Amino acid sequence: MPEIIGHNYIGGARSAAGHITLHSHDATRGEALPYTFTQATLEEVDAAALAAAAAYPTFRNLPASRRAEFLEAIASQLDALDDEFVALVTRETALPSGRIQGERGRTSGQMRLFAQVLRRGDFYGARIDRALPARQPLPRVDIRQYRIGVGPVAVFGASNFPLAFSTAGGDTAAALAAGCPVVFKAHSGHMATAERVANAILRAAEQTDMPKGVFNMIYGAGVGEALVKHPAIQAVGFTGSLKGGRALCDMAAARPQPIPVFAEMSSINPVLVLPEALHLRGEKIASELVASVVQGCGQFCTNPGLVIGMHSPAFSAFVEHLAAHMAEQPGQVMLNAGTYRSYSNGVQALLSHPGIHRLAGQDQPGNHAQPQLFKADASLLLRGDPLLQEEVFGPTTIVVEVADKAQLRQVLNSLHGQLTATLIGEAQDLQEHGELLALLEQKVGRVLFNGYPTGVEVCDAMVHGGPYPATSDARGTSVGSLAIERFLRPVCYQNCPDALLPEALKDANPLGIARLVDGNSQREALA
Amino acid sequence: MPEIIGHNYIGGARSAAGHITLHSHDATRGEALPYTFTQATLEEVDAAALAAAAAYPTFRNLPASRRAEFLEAIASQLDALDDEFVALVTRETALPSGRIQGERGRTSGQMRLFAQVLRRGDFYGARIDRALPARQPLPRVDIRQYRIGVGPVAVFGASNFPLAFSTAGGDTAAALAAGCPVVFKAHSGHMATAERVANAILRAAEQTDMPKGVFNMIYGAGVGEALVKHPAIQAVGFTGSLKGGRALCDMAAARPQPIPVFAEMSSINPVLVLPEALHLRGEKIASELVASVVQGCGQFCTNPGLVIGMHSPAFSAFVEHLAAHMAEQPGQVMLNAGTYRSYSNGVQALLSHPGIHRLAGQDQPGNHAQPQLFKADASLLLRGDPLLQEEVFGPTTIVVEVADKAQLRQVLNSLHGQLTATLIGEAQDLQEHGELLALLEQKVGRVLFNGYPTGVEVCDAMVHGGPYPATSDARGTSVGSLAIERFLRPVCYQNCPDALLPEALKDANPLGIARLVDGNSQREALA
Repeated sequence: MPEIIGHNYIGGARSAAGHITLHSHDATRGEALPYTFTQATLEEVDAAALAAAAAYPTFRNLPASRRAEFLEAIASQLDALDDEFVALVTRETALPSGRIQGERGRTSGQMRLFAQVLRRGDFYGARIDRALPARQPLPRVDIRQYRIGVGPVAVFGASNFPLAFSTAGGDTAAALAAGCPVVFKAHSGHMATAERVANAILRAAEQTDMPKGVFNMIYGAGVGEALVKHPAIQAVGFTGSLKGGRALCDMAAARPQPIPVFAEMSSINPVLVLPEALHLRGEKIASELVASVVQGCGQFCTNPGLVIGMHSPAFSAFVEHLAAHMAEQPGQVMLNAGTYRSYSNGVQALLSHPGIHRLAGQDQPGNHAQPQLFKADASLLLRGDPLLQEEVFGPTTIVVEVADKAQLRQVLNSLHGQLTATLIGEAQDLQEHGELLALLEQKVGRVLFNGYPTGVEVCDAMVHGGPYPATSDARGTSVGSLAIERFLRPVCYQNCPDALLPEALKDANPLGIARLVDGNSQREALA
Repeated sequence: MPEIIGHNYIGGARSAAGHITLHSHDATRGEALPYTFTQATLEEVDAAALAAAAAYPTFRNLPASRRAEFLEAIASQLDALDDEFVALVTRETALPSGRIQGERGRTSGQMRLFAQVLRRGDFYGARIDRALPARQPLPRVDIRQYRIGVGPVAVFGASNFPLAFSTAGGDTAAALAAGCPVVFKAHSGHMATAERVANAILRAAEQTDMPKGVFNMIYGAGVGEALVKHPAIQAVGFTGSLKGGRALCDMAAARPQPIPVFAEMSSINPVLVLPEALHLRGEKIASELVASVVQGCGQFCTNPGLVIGMHSPAFSAFVEHLAAHMAEQPGQVMLNAGTYRSYSNGVQALLSHPGIHRLAGQDQPGNHAQPQLFKADASLLLRGDPLLQEEVFGPTTIVVEVADKAQLRQVLNSLHGQLTATLIGEAQDLQEHGELLALLEQKVGRVLFNGYPTGVEVCDAMVHGGPYPATSDARGTSVGSLAIERFLRPVCYQNCPDALLPEALKDANPLGIARLVDGNSQREALA
């Protein structure tokens, strides 16, 4: 296994011009790992963005099949990362090796899904309106449209998925698929992991003869601002905190040329437990829900942070089961000291709130995050108490009991935007509360039925997004193949000779893709 | 014809709570017209936004066919606006009646195009990934995605298209099609026109039984800020100046919940004239180009403001023809006194620039905008002189002569984002300069060949958009059916009982729309 040298990745080469060095840590023991990373200088940030810009004209114009080969080569390189790699990730994040192995497969699978999208060709959004020379009062000229990558994309990965939402994660995969070179800001929580993954991407880039600068990575604490403000950067993908994401949005909006930021930030993922389901299987739901809350130490964007039910003996019994199960859950080590500190502060804030009381959970010993169950008065939600709208990242959830259907509606109306909402109910429940569905749809990106929001399938139909503050732009998703659309823009050709048209728009349809021709979807060549 | 009362339109009723009154003017004579408009108070802005929010849950959930009927009813109402209406628009804008008649047809046609889109159903973006219960290592649950309207949309119309880009214009049509109620800020340049058109929309809303508040309109100078900042507003459509558009973007980005703004702002629409074409038909091109520059007094977003050619005797002759044709063009009355003032100031700035000289054109007499032809040194573009990047709204264009192919490339690289770029060339020219196409594609939303950018076809394949500052978001278009996508966001359903799914996602596919099922596009019902 090659040495980890901690130099920045710029235009296919390594660079360490700066003097500020950083260290990665053993998440469980807290000790520094024996690797040194050199923070990028402002000149290196500039060079990385310019390297991406230099790669853009070539990369975006490659046949989509070539970009698909690149993504598949990355996937193979990721799959080939061995047990030593898994041990390294485990050491940096305290996530168990089984989870990392699974995440490795998820990350390579994500690359392969985007390769399929590229081969399928619907991402082109090809549209052709043929000339109508005899139209009255004016003839129509031939007009054709397809989509191209917007330009270099800056990506900020998340701590909680060191593979699937990081260096070679969904944002990187979507941007590369769209034809956008990437400058990745390595996450401070897993810099050694980031280096191994960046090496895998570069090996794939070399194998498939991609332009240098197609993928760049910089280390450092303050480098994100310079990156987002760099004129070559045309869009930003981010997964992390509301504070961090909003700061990037504000910077991007204040640029001479504003650029879009797709930040996935904060969600408390309400779960509604409905009466008949509680009556029939309340204890089972309680045990499943607790498992979802504590899974991966609660370090998921889709962790269920709010459980809402209507006043009834069945709900009271359910809450007792919840408390009993939660009390049995062991403490776990979190991703890093900062995450643990945030969690402790969040729990402390809930403990000191007079309208919130703890139903289960212990004070934090050492660096182990203790699972917690709280109960809050519905009036807090109705009054818009910020503590109930803010994500406490970790194994904590808050129960809210509402008086009746009317109050349930009010409470849901008072919620901010969310990644997910979940309905747990029997057929009868769902029929009775069907009108809630329209309301939830306005609040979230994904509505689940009789399941738990942790676990986000990577597929065509997934939406991992939602209204603010869940994300900065509800029109995007950061998981699933629709994620590519964030990094594409339409271009149209008017009266263009066939020979000069991009393949996707030529009369002969050499790519064999579906196109909207004069308002009808078809794959035929044009006469 | 009903009286013009100048009250705001809020939730299907009229309201004039304020004390600030406004007047519309005869654009040719400058005199105030005998109508009084009452500026909306802050309370009325609030009421209008809340009326739109109240209409949203019902309106967005109507079957798309119902929204299509609404748009078609608006189209019929627009077509029925009579000669007296045309005379009124002509009076407020100084645009000739033939143009207004044509624009009326374009505006109703636009409504009908969106009705077709709603019936076609591709706007739903329906995607279904069916459950894979036997998948290893984990089963996949059923996941389905479609798109819904983002919520109430604020629309700011343009002065230069009092119908097609105003009250019932493209942004309004796209928002209503998407299921988003609209609050329209009436343009101060044609408030009486706006009232007649708003009445037409409300008649259509009543005929087709739309919820009250589906369309609202407010008058006033300072009301836009309150509207964009209103928490109920979820997106903004704007056509106008760079300064005005950027101000709205900044406000929207600074909201507690930032919202997207689609502002179509500033473009100088470069036209490249290539050698062989100049050799064969230089004089004809000069005459056509001048016609495009002065058409509608140059008051088009796509007016060609920059003509670029390579040094040669043929180019010199072409520029002489341009100058001769331009000198023959009469002055015209502009849309309003403010537009004329801006034009005069823009022309004055060009006249006082030492690196720019006038080839044709006279000083402005009275309120008539005189067509102008300037020549600027290529070095100004290369140095990034702002005067050459800024749109002078009116019948003016600037010729730039470049030394050779290499300088042509440099000049194009130095351009900001544009709505359009045009190549005028013979087959041989286009072959020789084919590599420019990739460069232009990165700069613009629409590339034209052997045509002129004025005239924007309303169709599926049109892109009226482009990189900043042409628009605030290159991923959108404000003309053509793709404009609906700006106001839609994806929502997904996980493991949802068929009965609760929206029609677009039900197994039986009752709408008969094309859907991406397990990665394949199909219209079949699911077993």
